[in-house]
Amino acid sequence: MRALVILAHPYENSFNHAIFNKLCGSLEDNGFKVLAHDLYKEEFNPVLPVEELGKAPTKDPLVIRHAEDLLAADILCFIHPNWWGQPPAILKGWIDRVIRPPYAYDLPEGAVSGLPIEKLGGKLGLVYNTSNTPKDREDNYFGDPLEKEWRQCFFGFCGIKDFRRRMFRIVSESTPDERQQWLLQVERDVLEISGILKNRKA
Amino acid sequence: MRALVILAHPYENSFNHAIFNKLCGSLEDNGFKVLAHDLYKEEFNPVLPVEELGKAPTKDPLVIRHAEDLLAADILCFIHPNWWGQPPAILKGWIDRVIRPPYAYDLPEGAVSGLPIEKLGGKLGLVYNTSNTPKDREDNYFGDPLEKEWRQCFFGFCGIKDFRRRMFRIVSESTPDERQQWLLQVERDVLEISGILKNRKA
Repeated sequence: MRALVILAHPYENSFNHAIFNKLCGSLEDNGFKVLAHDLYKEEFNPVLPVEELGKAPTKDPLVIRHAEDLLAADILCFIHPNWWGQPPAILKGWIDRVIRPPYAYDLPEGAVSGLPIEKLGGKLGLVYNTSNTPKDREDNYFGDPLEKEWRQCFFGFCGIKDFRRRMFRIVSESTPDERQQWLLQVERDVLEISGILKNRKA
Repeated sequence: MRALVILAHPYENSFNHAIFNKLCGSLEDNGFKVLAHDLYKEEFNPVLPVEELGKAPTKDPLVIRHAEDLLAADILCFIHPNWWGQPPAILKGWIDRVIRPPYAYDLPEGAVSGLPIEKLGGKLGLVYNTSNTPKDREDNYFGDPLEKEWRQCFFGFCGIKDFRRRMFRIVSESTPDERQQWLLQVERDVLEISGILKNRKA
């Protein structure tokens, strides 16, 4: 079993990095081959160039490698802070550039709009977010756009129905004990997901 | 009166560019000084570096110029396609890097979360989006996350209450006549907004 793990945070001692390390370790402990990418460390270029518009495949070797890892993985994991109800630009641009024809999806011959041909069906989706916004304000004022962005616009569009997402908050006011509990939750998530995938393959 | 106009599209003959040109021209015709930025043309770097986390002000001259234009403007305009229910990464990163303390907002002394000190109050917000997704699928499946991202997460957070947004669709199947009508709508919007601002200043 393979897991793609994508991290988007500029600070190497961030709690996002702690989640990343815990998640990669737990996945390995449960027998996964982990395809891990720290986008800041790799200096991923998030700006989709004009040549990649429409159905033209990318020629960027790093983007191709990410697209191949995406297709190879049984589970797709993303870790990022909530910045303006969206991922940091480096991850937004990962979506812009990696989730493209002919890899993640395709469009019927001649079509430029309409329903896509899904190519990621059957994979599992897992998203960890961190936030400094209270739950009440996030849900009732901002409306938690990240949920729709990930569940419908990304995973749903690509044919992925089994999706889970956790928001850890409020990181800036959290205690070491809370953060420890959050990391234990990551371990438990991996154990559960690992069980689902093993049952499927059995 | 000053207008900030931000464009995010990689293709210089795109309909987004046509909106940009029409909007800038109409604003000038109505007496605005237009502070226009084509992010692709300026090669804006959307990746927030670790040094800009928290309250640390940027040292990037281009980001500082954008922040100063933002503060100087009476109306803030954004033009971008709907990519994954979000703006292209180059514009997402403009938000990450330009909408920062001490320019667009600030945080109370010592605070790392909680309500911001708004610094853009009284300005008007205007967003033009293009899309190849039918309205029914956008509203009922994807849930139109762009609306919350712009209205609440961006303009609302910064204290801007007067916000309007138009989605032109389906661009890929549109006729020259439809596109002409959309551009006339842009002209009418400017006329209306111009009237609002002139009344306020009178």
